[in-house]
Amino acid sequence: MNQISLAPIGILRSPFKEKFGIPRQGNLAASIEAEIELFPKDRGEAWLDGIEGFSHLWLISVFHSHLGFKGPSKIHPPRLDGESVGILASRSPHRPNPIGLTLVNFVSRSGHRLKVHGVDLLDETPILDIKPFIADCDTAIHARQGWVGSNPWPKKSVIIANSISGDLERLYELVPQPVRPEKLLAMVEEILREDPRSVVDRQSDRLFWLRLYDIDFGFRIVENNVLVERVRFAYSSPLFAKFEQENQKSQN
Amino acid sequence: MNQISLAPIGILRSPFKEKFGIPRQGNLAASIEAEIELFPKDRGEAWLDGIEGFSHLWLISVFHSHLGFKGPSKIHPPRLDGESVGILASRSPHRPNPIGLTLVNFVSRSGHRLKVHGVDLLDETPILDIKPFIADCDTAIHARQGWVGSNPWPKKSVIIANSISGDLERLYELVPQPVRPEKLLAMVEEILREDPRSVVDRQSDRLFWLRLYDIDFGFRIVENNVLVERVRFAYSSPLFAKFEQENQKSQN
Repeated sequence: MNQISLAPIGILRSPFKEKFGIPRQGNLAASIEAEIELFPKDRGEAWLDGIEGFSHLWLISVFHSHLGFKGPSKIHPPRLDGESVGILASRSPHRPNPIGLTLVNFVSRSGHRLKVHGVDLLDETPILDIKPFIADCDTAIHARQGWVGSNPWPKKSVIIANSISGDLERLYELVPQPVRPEKLLAMVEEILREDPRSVVDRQSDRLFWLRLYDIDFGFRIVENNVLVERVRFAYSSPLFAKFEQENQKSQN
Repeated sequence: MNQISLAPIGILRSPFKEKFGIPRQGNLAASIEAEIELFPKDRGEAWLDGIEGFSHLWLISVFHSHLGFKGPSKIHPPRLDGESVGILASRSPHRPNPIGLTLVNFVSRSGHRLKVHGVDLLDETPILDIKPFIADCDTAIHARQGWVGSNPWPKKSVIIANSISGDLERLYELVPQPVRPEKLLAMVEEILREDPRSVVDRQSDRLFWLRLYDIDFGFRIVENNVLVERVRFAYSSPLFAKFEQENQKSQN
């Protein structure tokens, strides 16, 4: 077999509009909510019968922003601080075949929409398959975990500036977001304590921007502290024109 | 995205030449040995650097004998004895996209060949990706497991007829197999105690044949006992002509 051609069965709706900031694994940010929207085609809902009995699901997905690249043989994982490992000994998305594997918490179903928690995937990620988690065959006891096991990744402290709450509340009122400001801040904290910067970026204490839905959070990392200093409506959002209009109105 | 086209990175060599008898999950038959043969292409071996540190790997594979079928919306899992569940609430290979997910024990590497234990896949299965098992992101504690959790699958007792050992030894001497007769019998026992018959087949106490490598094992299941009664060289093996020749010779 030289090639296999697959058609996605659905698409993911997630708060991650950009690659930067996506947790290195889903369960590092358990509060991230996402929705899988399955394409019903001619199947009705029968193919989901019984899925509510499972608390965890595997998503097999396409790293669609990595499509068409050949992919490197080795990558530099952040926790190795410059050293490299083979791509097949890593969970990096830059793979020979751009296929993702994520264990998610299954929250609820409404027709063809599955609400899940703990995703590490971009918005609009194509979904190839969903499988129930079955402990008997999916669990390895006392697994040896190579470079991952021997290099723990320490969490940072996240400090959110005083001004952020008010500014965020105001942005939210002008253009409502899928989740409330408190929830957005909880997500920011969960994501930033993992330090999303690449090995190269880590040499810099400049301002970085994390985008969730249509909101940009500006932060700086100094040693073990993450300082969230700014918040703004994302310029690159398709809703930015609407935001400017509402902002204008509110100031008149 | 309507279609994604993927090229396998390797192929699996397993003792399962036929679908019948393949364990419903890899770790149900931990003694099954298999080898992943990666296609080196222009990558050298760099893409495997560091993989030896991991004791368990995920194989993402193609159910190649199910390619080209649309697949049903529901299936009848053996443990539900006639009831059906949605295909996405099951691990059946008859999926909308024929993608397999198997956790295997990684034993050793020799160049581009990875020896693994505990596969539930046909010989010549195309491999799309290999990922290291990382407990932090691949483990669900206290997972609810729907119809699987509430319907345990009792094991059967396997009784191997006295005559089998001698007959098997003779076949093995005529056409050597990748594993020794004792090991073959251990595999037979591990596989048959799970009762590989489908719901429909279970209504019959006829003789069934389990093929491992080039050997067929004939068995019958009566209530909770599996009786392994016969052993023969598999007619469908490409080595059958050679077997007949050797057999002729040995009888002259």
